[in-house]
Amino acid sequence: MPDREVMARAVALAARGLGTTSPNPVVGCVVLDAAGEVAGEGWHERAGGPHAEVNALAAAGDRARGGTAYVTLEPCNHTGRTGPCVQALLRAGIARVVFAVADPGALAGGGARELRAAGVEVVAGVLAEEAERVNEAWLTSARRHRPHVLWKFAATLDGRSAAADGTSRWISSAASRGQVHDLRRRVDAVVAGSGTVLADDPRLTAREPDGTLSARQPLRVVVDRRGRVPATAAVLDGSAPTLVSTAATPADLLAELHERGVVSVLLEGGPTLAGAFLAAGLVDRVTAYVAPTLLGAGPAALAGTGITTIADAVGLDVDDVSVVGGDVRLSGRPAPRR
Amino acid sequence: MPDREVMARAVALAARGLGTTSPNPVVGCVVLDAAGEVAGEGWHERAGGPHAEVNALAAAGDRARGGTAYVTLEPCNHTGRTGPCVQALLRAGIARVVFAVADPGALAGGGARELRAAGVEVVAGVLAEEAERVNEAWLTSARRHRPHVLWKFAATLDGRSAAADGTSRWISSAASRGQVHDLRRRVDAVVAGSGTVLADDPRLTAREPDGTLSARQPLRVVVDRRGRVPATAAVLDGSAPTLVSTAATPADLLAELHERGVVSVLLEGGPTLAGAFLAAGLVDRVTAYVAPTLLGAGPAALAGTGITTIADAVGLDVDDVSVVGGDVRLSGRPAPRR
Ligand SMILES: NC(=O)c1ccc[n+]([C@@H]2O[C@H](COP(=O)([O-])OP(=O)(O)OC[C@H]3O[C@@H](n4cnc5c(N)ncnc54)[C@H](OP(=O)(O)O)[C@@H]3O)[C@@H](O)[C@H]2O)c1
Ligand SMILES: NC(=O)c1ccc[n+]([C@@H]2O[C@H](COP(=O)([O-])OP(=O)(O)OC[C@H]3O[C@@H](n4cnc5c(N)ncnc54)[C@H](OP(=O)(O)O)[C@@H]3O)[C@@H](O)[C@H]2O)c1
Repeated sequence: MPDREVMARAVALAARGLGTTSPNPVVGCVVLDAAGEVAGEGWHERAGGPHAEVNALAAAGDRARGGTAYVTLEPCNHTGRTGPCVQALLRAGIARVVFAVADPGALAGGGARELRAAGVEVVAGVLAEEAERVNEAWLTSARRHRPHVLWKFAATLDGRSAAADGTSRWISSAASRGQVHDLRRRVDAVVAGSGTVLADDPRLTAREPDGTLSARQPLRVVVDRRGRVPATAAVLDGSAPTLVSTAATPADLLAELHERGVVSVLLEGGPTLAGAFLAAGLVDRVTAYVAPTLLGAGPAALAGTGITTIADAVGLDVDDVSVVGGDVRLSGRPAPRR
Repeated sequence: MPDREVMARAVALAARGLGTTSPNPVVGCVVLDAAGEVAGEGWHERAGGPHAEVNALAAAGDRARGGTAYVTLEPCNHTGRTGPCVQALLRAGIARVVFAVADPGALAGGGARELRAAGVEVVAGVLAEEAERVNEAWLTSARRHRPHVLWKFAATLDGRSAAADGTSRWISSAASRGQVHDLRRRVDAVVAGSGTVLADDPRLTAREPDGTLSARQPLRVVVDRRGRVPATAAVLDGSAPTLVSTAATPADLLAELHERGVVSVLLEGGPTLAGAFLAAGLVDRVTAYVAPTLLGAGPAALAGTGITTIADAVGLDVDDVSVVGGDVRLSGRPAPRR
């Protein structure tokens, strides 16, 4: 099997950990024996649990000797809650290590160097783009020292997030709304503005299709510098932890969340708060659910970016366009400003 | 070959006539011989030219005898600029006629009845949806006694048709803009509002990729009840015919265009004129080019619909979502109001 093919499998394994590994990365690993046959697979399942390499090596047993390990992230050489993976790979007699993305962590870096020093053949960068994508939140946090920010919004085809009288239930399809709960389950924190809390009184919890609370809940964060959110707000109902922040800027808010160990943020709006984040260059990914409906009036999906001319528009590098329950979902990363 | 498969070929042949048959429909025809082999194909190529059936029968020659003719539209039994197709089919000895869509024309109707009376087996409704779609403009005109209206617009992901300072070149990709010229070549008339003419001074001509005028030009129509458009406007440059209309309502405008033999209209905006058409229920299809960019300010893509609450939003029955040069193209027909 070509390296890229095996790595694609490792990326798929890594994705299984999304939502349960924070503040750790998601990592997938496939071990081939000396004859090139799959001997073991593993992924990092949850923070505090064994690393992907350890799981895959355990599954491979003696067949790992002389074999190749494919890992989506450079193996760590530090001792965290579990022992360093480099030692585990050497102990198992792995002859070749193929990894996708270098570990940006200061503490954890250097696994490749150590493996090479021990005589292991090391190949870096295989299927790096796909492995970056699956680990986007953790890599952003590790590189930028602030949480990854995904702004999601729902709008009509003419860009309205509600009708003129404020009604917005439901602009997007049931399937799209279900995906929002999937997103909430996966992130560490959900952020909303005071305007949205006052207008819609959302709960911001992750809920199952039957309406019950999901087992894992993100931290609910409301930006409310002026103390406008009342104690009776649904977001303060105690069904999940809530932080009411008076941070002056989006950067301050993200610093505060980073301090608390938040790796990934789902920014749910409204339009003004999203505009403040975009203007500050603090949106890492935009996911839009565009409903095939037209209004012709009502609040816009985005405001307050300060952009006045077309040449300054924020372009997205789109990597996903799909149809979800009749809506068009479009997702991409803001392109670097010219 | 199953009937649907042959009819799909006939629909593809019909589509070749789009843009050159107005005020006639587009029609495709496939003739199978008695053994079920393709004996001849044809389509209606231009108004005044032979009908699809005549072209296909000519290609089939003697092999038509005892065979089957597949036609996307019920064969005509009237004598227009060419003789009736029913007579041609009978003369050629066709034993079976399969057609997709009944002819809604008062003059032309009844071809099926006449064929049956002459002993020909007739099957109706095969692949009707696809055949309706390819002939959407002509069928709308024949049934509603007014031109078919396609509203196309380009907008950012947050629904802006321009930036706050009025700049909008170019919101959409070069490929999307090229498709707009394809659309202009295909329709009988292009309609724009006085606000757009005053703001953008567009030419509204169909142009080739190299910028030269296309051979076929739609009638350019400007709605200008208040006489605001100056004689120096580009739309009055004489490079193609232009009508400046003072029609009081979209319905009046369409009646005026119907009188002139206009079967299909491309409504190019702006937002206010599009809103007036939508409010009057006079938009038959919406094609949106959504660019993956964000502005946060600037004129909305649609205005003046009079819709105030989410339950009254105009839903689209979407039949096309595709990526065009990085933009998402979404096309559909407004769903009947609840
Ligand atoms: N369709 C959707 O996807 C969607 C999602 C959410 C909301 N909505 C709609 O959006 C509407 C509410 O939106 P909105 O725009 O009025 O309010 P909003 O964005 O929810 O609230 C504005 C927020 O931005 C904060 N803010 C403004 N400038 C800032 C800056 N420079 N730095 C940090 N924070 C800043 C404000 O903080 P302070 O309070 O401290 O001033 C406030 O928290 C509602 O109608 C709701 O239905 C739609
Ligand atoms: N991105 C795009 O796809 C796109 C396309 C076109 C335009 N635009 C932008 O749109 C802006 C201009 O749009 P706009 O909304 O200001 O003007 P507009 O829609 O071009 O002009 C308004 C038109 O609506 C007519 N009108 C209004 N109510 C009517 C009714 N009830 N019945 C019949 N006609 C009616 C007006 O006629 P009277 O003049 O007789 O009052 C006028 O012709 C420009 O900034 C342009 O760049 C964008």
